[in-house]
Amino acid sequence: MAQTREIRLGLPSKGPLAEPARELLDQAGLRVHHPNPRQYQADIPNLPGVTVLFQRPGDVVVSVRDGSVDFGITGWDMVSEKRGENGHILPIHTALGFGQCTLNVIVPEAWEKVNTLADLKALQAEWNRPLKVATKFPVQAEAFFQRNGLEFVEFISAEGTLEIAPTIGYADLITDLVSTGVTLRDNRLKCLVDGQILASQGCLIANRESLKNNLVTLGVARTLLEFIVACLRARDNVSVFANMRGDSPESIAERMFTQAVIGGLQGPTLSPVITRQGEKWYAAHLVVRKDQLSQAISELRSVGGSGVVISPVSYIFEEEPVEYQAMLKQLEDGNA
Amino acid sequence: MAQTREIRLGLPSKGPLAEPARELLDQAGLRVHHPNPRQYQADIPNLPGVTVLFQRPGDVVVSVRDGSVDFGITGWDMVSEKRGENGHILPIHTALGFGQCTLNVIVPEAWEKVNTLADLKALQAEWNRPLKVATKFPVQAEAFFQRNGLEFVEFISAEGTLEIAPTIGYADLITDLVSTGVTLRDNRLKCLVDGQILASQGCLIANRESLKNNLVTLGVARTLLEFIVACLRARDNVSVFANMRGDSPESIAERMFTQAVIGGLQGPTLSPVITRQGEKWYAAHLVVRKDQLSQAISELRSVGGSGVVISPVSYIFEEEPVEYQAMLKQLEDGNA
Amino acid sequence: MAQTREIRLGLPSKGPLAEPARELLDQAGLRVHHPNPRQYQADIPNLPGVTVLFQRPGDVVVSVRDGSVDFGITGWDMVSEKRGENGHILPIHTALGFGQCTLNVIVPEAWEKVNTLADLKALQAEWNRPLKVATKFPVQAEAFFQRNGLEFVEFISAEGTLEIAPTIGYADLITDLVSTGVTLRDNRLKCLVDGQILASQGCLIANRESLKNNLVTLGVARTLLEFIVACLRARDNVSVFANMRGDSPESIAERMFTQAVIGGLQGPTLSPVITRQGEKWYAAHLVVRKDQLSQAISELRSVGGSGVVISPVSYIFEEEPVEYQAMLKQLEDGNA
Amino acid sequence: MAQTREIRLGLPSKGPLAEPARELLDQAGLRVHHPNPRQYQADIPNLPGVTVLFQRPGDVVVSVRDGSVDFGITGWDMVSEKRGENGHILPIHTALGFGQCTLNVIVPEAWEKVNTLADLKALQAEWNRPLKVATKFPVQAEAFFQRNGLEFVEFISAEGTLEIAPTIGYADLITDLVSTGVTLRDNRLKCLVDGQILASQGCLIANRESLKNNLVTLGVARTLLEFIVACLRARDNVSVFANMRGDSPESIAERMFTQAVIGGLQGPTLSPVITRQGEKWYAAHLVVRKDQLSQAISELRSVGGSGVVISPVSYIFEEEPVEYQAMLKQLEDGNA
Amino acid sequence: MAQTREIRLGLPSKGPLAEPARELLDQAGLRVHHPNPRQYQADIPNLPGVTVLFQRPGDVVVSVRDGSVDFGITGWDMVSEKRGENGHILPIHTALGFGQCTLNVIVPEAWEKVNTLADLKALQAEWNRPLKVATKFPVQAEAFFQRNGLEFVEFISAEGTLEIAPTIGYADLITDLVSTGVTLRDNRLKCLVDGQILASQGCLIANRESLKNNLVTLGVARTLLEFIVACLRARDNVSVFANMRGDSPESIAERMFTQAVIGGLQGPTLSPVITRQGEKWYAAHLVVRKDQLSQAISELRSVGGSGVVISPVSYIFEEEPVEYQAMLKQLEDGNA
Amino acid sequence: MAQTREIRLGLPSKGPLAEPARELLDQAGLRVHHPNPRQYQADIPNLPGVTVLFQRPGDVVVSVRDGSVDFGITGWDMVSEKRGENGHILPIHTALGFGQCTLNVIVPEAWEKVNTLADLKALQAEWNRPLKVATKFPVQAEAFFQRNGLEFVEFISAEGTLEIAPTIGYADLITDLVSTGVTLRDNRLKCLVDGQILASQGCLIANRESLKNNLVTLGVARTLLEFIVACLRARDNVSVFANMRGDSPESIAERMFTQAVIGGLQGPTLSPVITRQGEKWYAAHLVVRKDQLSQAISELRSVGGSGVVISPVSYIFEEEPVEYQAMLKQLEDGNA
Repeated sequence: MAQTREIRLGLPSKGPLAEPARELLDQAGLRVHHPNPRQYQADIPNLPGVTVLFQRPGDVVVSVRDGSVDFGITGWDMVSEKRGENGHILPIHTALGFGQCTLNVIVPEAWEKVNTLADLKALQAEWNRPLKVATKFPVQAEAFFQRNGLEFVEFISAEGTLEIAPTIGYADLITDLVSTGVTLRDNRLKCLVDGQILASQGCLIANRESLKNNLVTLGVARTLLEFIVACLRARDNVSVFANMRGDSPESIAERMFTQAVIGGLQGPTLSPVITRQGEKWYAAHLVVRKDQLSQAISELRSVGGSGVVISPVSYIFEEEPVEYQAMLKQLEDGNA
Repeated sequence: MAQTREIRLGLPSKGPLAEPARELLDQAGLRVHHPNPRQYQADIPNLPGVTVLFQRPGDVVVSVRDGSVDFGITGWDMVSEKRGENGHILPIHTALGFGQCTLNVIVPEAWEKVNTLADLKALQAEWNRPLKVATKFPVQAEAFFQRNGLEFVEFISAEGTLEIAPTIGYADLITDLVSTGVTLRDNRLKCLVDGQILASQGCLIANRESLKNNLVTLGVARTLLEFIVACLRARDNVSVFANMRGDSPESIAERMFTQAVIGGLQGPTLSPVITRQGEKWYAAHLVVRKDQLSQAISELRSVGGSGVVISPVSYIFEEEPVEYQAMLKQLEDGNA
Repeated sequence: MAQTREIRLGLPSKGPLAEPARELLDQAGLRVHHPNPRQYQADIPNLPGVTVLFQRPGDVVVSVRDGSVDFGITGWDMVSEKRGENGHILPIHTALGFGQCTLNVIVPEAWEKVNTLADLKALQAEWNRPLKVATKFPVQAEAFFQRNGLEFVEFISAEGTLEIAPTIGYADLITDLVSTGVTLRDNRLKCLVDGQILASQGCLIANRESLKNNLVTLGVARTLLEFIVACLRARDNVSVFANMRGDSPESIAERMFTQAVIGGLQGPTLSPVITRQGEKWYAAHLVVRKDQLSQAISELRSVGGSGVVISPVSYIFEEEPVEYQAMLKQLEDGNA
Repeated sequence: MAQTREIRLGLPSKGPLAEPARELLDQAGLRVHHPNPRQYQADIPNLPGVTVLFQRPGDVVVSVRDGSVDFGITGWDMVSEKRGENGHILPIHTALGFGQCTLNVIVPEAWEKVNTLADLKALQAEWNRPLKVATKFPVQAEAFFQRNGLEFVEFISAEGTLEIAPTIGYADLITDLVSTGVTLRDNRLKCLVDGQILASQGCLIANRESLKNNLVTLGVARTLLEFIVACLRARDNVSVFANMRGDSPESIAERMFTQAVIGGLQGPTLSPVITRQGEKWYAAHLVVRKDQLSQAISELRSVGGSGVVISPVSYIFEEEPVEYQAMLKQLEDGNA
Repeated sequence: MAQTREIRLGLPSKGPLAEPARELLDQAGLRVHHPNPRQYQADIPNLPGVTVLFQRPGDVVVSVRDGSVDFGITGWDMVSEKRGENGHILPIHTALGFGQCTLNVIVPEAWEKVNTLADLKALQAEWNRPLKVATKFPVQAEAFFQRNGLEFVEFISAEGTLEIAPTIGYADLITDLVSTGVTLRDNRLKCLVDGQILASQGCLIANRESLKNNLVTLGVARTLLEFIVACLRARDNVSVFANMRGDSPESIAERMFTQAVIGGLQGPTLSPVITRQGEKWYAAHLVVRKDQLSQAISELRSVGGSGVVISPVSYIFEEEPVEYQAMLKQLEDGNA
Repeated sequence: MAQTREIRLGLPSKGPLAEPARELLDQAGLRVHHPNPRQYQADIPNLPGVTVLFQRPGDVVVSVRDGSVDFGITGWDMVSEKRGENGHILPIHTALGFGQCTLNVIVPEAWEKVNTLADLKALQAEWNRPLKVATKFPVQAEAFFQRNGLEFVEFISAEGTLEIAPTIGYADLITDLVSTGVTLRDNRLKCLVDGQILASQGCLIANRESLKNNLVTLGVARTLLEFIVACLRARDNVSVFANMRGDSPESIAERMFTQAVIGGLQGPTLSPVITRQGEKWYAAHLVVRKDQLSQAISELRSVGGSGVVISPVSYIFEEEPVEYQAMLKQLEDGNA
């Protein structure tokens, strides 16, 4: 029966991931159409049969885990905290490139001598009572403290603005998400230098059962991964056209192969340029990483290139994405 | 030791109660001074020694319950859900006049035959399986369903946008807060006609122990109640001055006492008006309710009044507020 | 049957009168409650039985004329243009104090020699062809041109941004509403010095038949007029309390009667002030116009006043408003 | 003489078409320069000699019809309603891709049994009186009702918020524009299932006489059409580069021709890729439709393609646009 | 000739004083009418003959000094810096109640040992080179450093964001205005504990010559001072009405005179209240300071008061304002 | 020592150049990362070792002049005014394509006969007293007046809104920046027809010493120029792909060389298109200027082109930018 209902994709309805998640889908050619902002459903015209649901970031995880939703985009912090033990959640892309933050152990600035976990342990020994730690991520926090041998700790589960908890005595210290650090500083708190519990960013998850039992889900997974991966790869690259002087394509390529950036594995496309005066010129076309562009220009010039034109790229599709292969592998392993 | 630290007042940091709570304090002469919006602390210049903490609406209740905060303003819905059994929370004003909403049992519009709790019971019997109810208020919801004999119910605790839960099969029905009903309608849901679990509005709560052990807390409670009560009472009243023709104050008052609105219990203030021609006029001053103003004007005219000038009032202080008396009573009862 | 349906009040849904119309009702104690901004109906909690309809300014007039709406607030420009001949529209307050503008004859700045209607006439004679006049108010415009002997005129009914009509040759000149004149200047146009067709502001109109046949309508008319008139009058006045030295109320009043502003027709209220040292002081209470306040202070000081406290007033109710009497008179006249 | 004045293009000054009309021109390389927002004129630096006029959507049609403006961009709904019979308006592009809406027959939700025109006819028969229909588009509405045999109908021409007309009895039903349907639902109205009178979107119109008599106008028409058509076509396409393994361009093309999407009519561009190891690779370049991109990737892979790079395109110029040819044809026909 | 031109009042066109300066005038009954926001002139309908000019805060001082403007409202910091030696500027109100800030000596947070001027002196000695101080207020800064014996200092006059000067080595330290301190902290700077150069707030200044030679200017000065002083005084007070039980006005007043707040110098107004049962009640009317309201309520209750109604006051006019007297004195002194 | 500190780039913190300066860097691949908007420092992830400082436009010049900042982007007006005589400032790009404005001599509209510098001279002669000129750019203004033989002029240095200076008699005329002219007109001022002192736009400046002594600075200068120049050039160009029928690349190129736009100096890239039917087609790739695109399309069609696809370009790198060469030259000259 599951095959006959529509496929569902949960997106964050608010918080810092809501906007970038929709932007990523938009750039990946999968724009969300949502005419009535008070309604919690929407659709993706280029993915017929898929319904978008706007949910709180944590509810995305819970719904995918219990199978009422097939796919979700949310933060890795939430997935780690709420995915549970049952293996129903399959993370299929864990680095969507937005919502970067870290989950950290955070103490008052006033604790001048406490900068590491070891200092914290010493403090606990000195006080001779359990440390009270307020956290929105008790699962992660407890595991981290245990891993690091900090055992005399009492966890207080809380929601919202933990930043005041140490001030009001509600807790001694907190674990919380940090992106720019400005809010911490305004509330006179600091991170421990070795207190990073988790690095998080936006990720795409799926319900394992739905993937296994419903071919439509599998097809949607493949389309999502294909377009998202191709879109993310394109963000870091540009398309480069350069005019190269040379007797033959082979001799030009030879010179280019001597260079670090423009002498990539496979080689450039080379097409003849017809000139008025009959000199031999070829147009080279290649794709280079944005952060190597400056070097690529230098290298091109050093081997006789000029008139370098850079164009944006929207997608780069390589072979079937490794993320898709990895997902299939996980599905099989789960079967074994 | 508790006596020596500052008194704390928790206010909602976001949600529909955040703004009106600050506005009420402002109108009551207790403006919150909060220069850095990223900091979660503030103060009230007219209440020295009191620190304001901005917290999520639910955390206000939890902090007052555990004593890390002395007073809180939040919704009665949250107080009811999270006050717990231990009696540490003392509600000292339960009708602050903002944030009105109701907690309701809500079902899909598509359930055309289900409009009452009885219908719901019948549906459960027909389906012969427990109804799944998603709720942000499990304590309230369970008590309500039990009180009404709906026992085959499975509660699913959730946060955020419950409105999609029935659509995606995450739950059969929900209980949620309703203010205007527009969001319900957009998501094709409806309230049961006898499904109101709770009526809520903004309220002021305090920590019982702090009130009992700390005279400063008691003083702050009295000031808060005095000014809030006087401010709320003033909202509904205006000050009325009218010129009345008559031989003596007594004869004018006599005529006024025959009227419903302007012949109140105690009677008007009457002062002589000195006229050029020497006729006998008196100025009457009284306070009337805004919703009786139209009638008051008619009555004044009918007994010879004219030139009625209406002025706003900022506060009306009667005897010590009944809310303060009731609070002292509760404190004593708790001691017995 | 008409008696049994609700009474309707049309308000402008957009344009420069929309906001001030709602503000006036709000200040007059008749706040419009309109929770869903996309809905075109609302109500006034303090006027039960009255439904508010949001309509375009011109539609307000048409609906009151045809009786589908009982009352309307809109601009006098619209009323003048669309009230028609049949006398169904009764203007019951024509100076609500907002939306002031004038309807003017407007020509290009480039017509340096044309500044009066006489100049315009001369121009027409010189051109020897009818002048083309674009206007949104053809009824008003035609009557005005005829009254002023400008007969060779062709009117072009238009909507919207007339300011470009002369530039593009769609018309030679225009008649249009002017409030600050800035838009005129930006489009290089100017008003004729004797070309004011109409002065307009917000006004309250009613359907004559509804007033005659429905006592509820009449009651609503009275309440609207009472509160609006009392509110408008209050805007221009303040309440003045002053301490006056003097042997008796009569002697103080005598001195005050010699003054222009504070010696009004009826005289002040005078109440004894009890002083520590036993000197004779009285408190005078009077109402003065805001624009005479400065003079009132001087006069009070000149006759021994000091400690003058000024308070705002919300409403001033005199005898039944003359506007209501005038309305009843018009209804009777219509009957004769 | 007309040849010597500037060419004029009317754009909507407000309403839902104003913003997208300017965006389309911007994307088509014809940005409107409008430094003073209170002025109703502007220019297009890349179209010297053309003046932009901002007008109300309906006035655009009227001005083009009477020749005071040469070109206009506005909604097809307005064109249909106001173009008149005289053939002065030539629609030269009727699908500019924005402002999509439909003109519909709309009745109260409360009329549960009325869902089709036939039901409406039955209702009219039952009531035995003409149905009152409020409409902003009387020409369209009357023709539609007549075409469908609904004759006992009285039309009421109105402007603005028709949605309240049925509620207040001003009309029985309405015809109005619908885009998302949310406003309808908020005012408890519904469309008849067979009641669509017109489908509308933004369109470009011209004055026939100006085109016939003024070569400058004709040149502007051609430029507008060239760039708008090339821009609209580009929106739906992307540029695809792929590396293909193969012995020769011909053998690669052969394999590509076997495919549905990438084996288009004309074939790909193929240029040699020079590789380090000397394998034979070629770069294929082709343009594909966005909605076929997913399939194009699969097809490319199936015939040995890899490293597919997608780039955006800004314009696609085919032969002289068919819209231009059609316009010339219409001009000639008009002459015959 | 000067007598015949209009009187000019310079207001800050931007910066933190612009808005509050206009609000103060508005509350004082002197609303600025400024329909075209791009024009730098405006008028005050209630002060005919006075033209408002919007100028940069420093230019206000310069224009009043050179006599091209008669009055100015700006910050005391600017007045102190730019008033010059010639005595042309007469400050006539120096505490308008807005724009409070201090001019401070500010050093990097990293200078852990430098917290006082003495520390700064020590640092200078240690470095053995002049300290570079960037400042927008060189006159004030130099005088302050000299007064405090810090002589080896080189001043760098600068505009704008001084906060980066120490970081980039443009200066060693700065003097700058501080209101909340948040910006300092964000740029890792701190104030010296004894480094306050000046406390500033909004003030009203006038040109001495204009006041001496032009009676109109003198009249405007008086009106400005009267209304501003009366408005500022009213902000801190409320009007109190209370019902008092007692045999006679004198006996009630006697009891009130025993109290600290309600037994003021002059005594309350007392008017009889006529009651149904004939008990003796009087209504007391007095004005109390807002920050003593709480105590006033207690005192009233303690001497038999009840039903205390508080109303806002708009102005309190005492005798001719001391600020006006002081101004006349200064004018005379200048003559001597 | 200077070599070891970070390189600094000053950007305008406010005013009309602030936003476009950041946009240019962003488009040039050098996005400014500035998470805390109240901090005056930021960095450019793609230019490690470079710190951005936000300064007032004039302070950018002063800081680069004194060497505390290495590079600055600001208006040429500011550079001209404040660069001083010492040659420390090296302008390395003077046409960044934003912030265009002119510095003009501006007089009241009321001076009907004064439209040229000669008229101004005549006026001065007639008045027989020096003209008072208010200016924010005294250096530029004085030089201009002197160059033009206007010697009897008194300059008044001022900041801010000079537009009111003539009205209030603070000056007779002004020199000020003009971009759209709207503000001038609102304040009834006009430019002299031959009174343009300077044309300004955004420019990039550097400190000469830093460039000479610090190789890192030189490297940053080169990167900035490379990317900014390539980005600016790209703005005006597009990439054109067209299918060309022809027997050989050479014959196609021959035909293209006969054309004005598409027969550029070097010639197109030509690659074979493999067609189903075996006709001979080639794909031509060239770059053309946007403002010649229309003509390029026509020319391509005229020589057998079709299917023209236009793509955006992000950068065009030619040989090392002439601006960089010019900078090196200036550095050497300075050494000589």
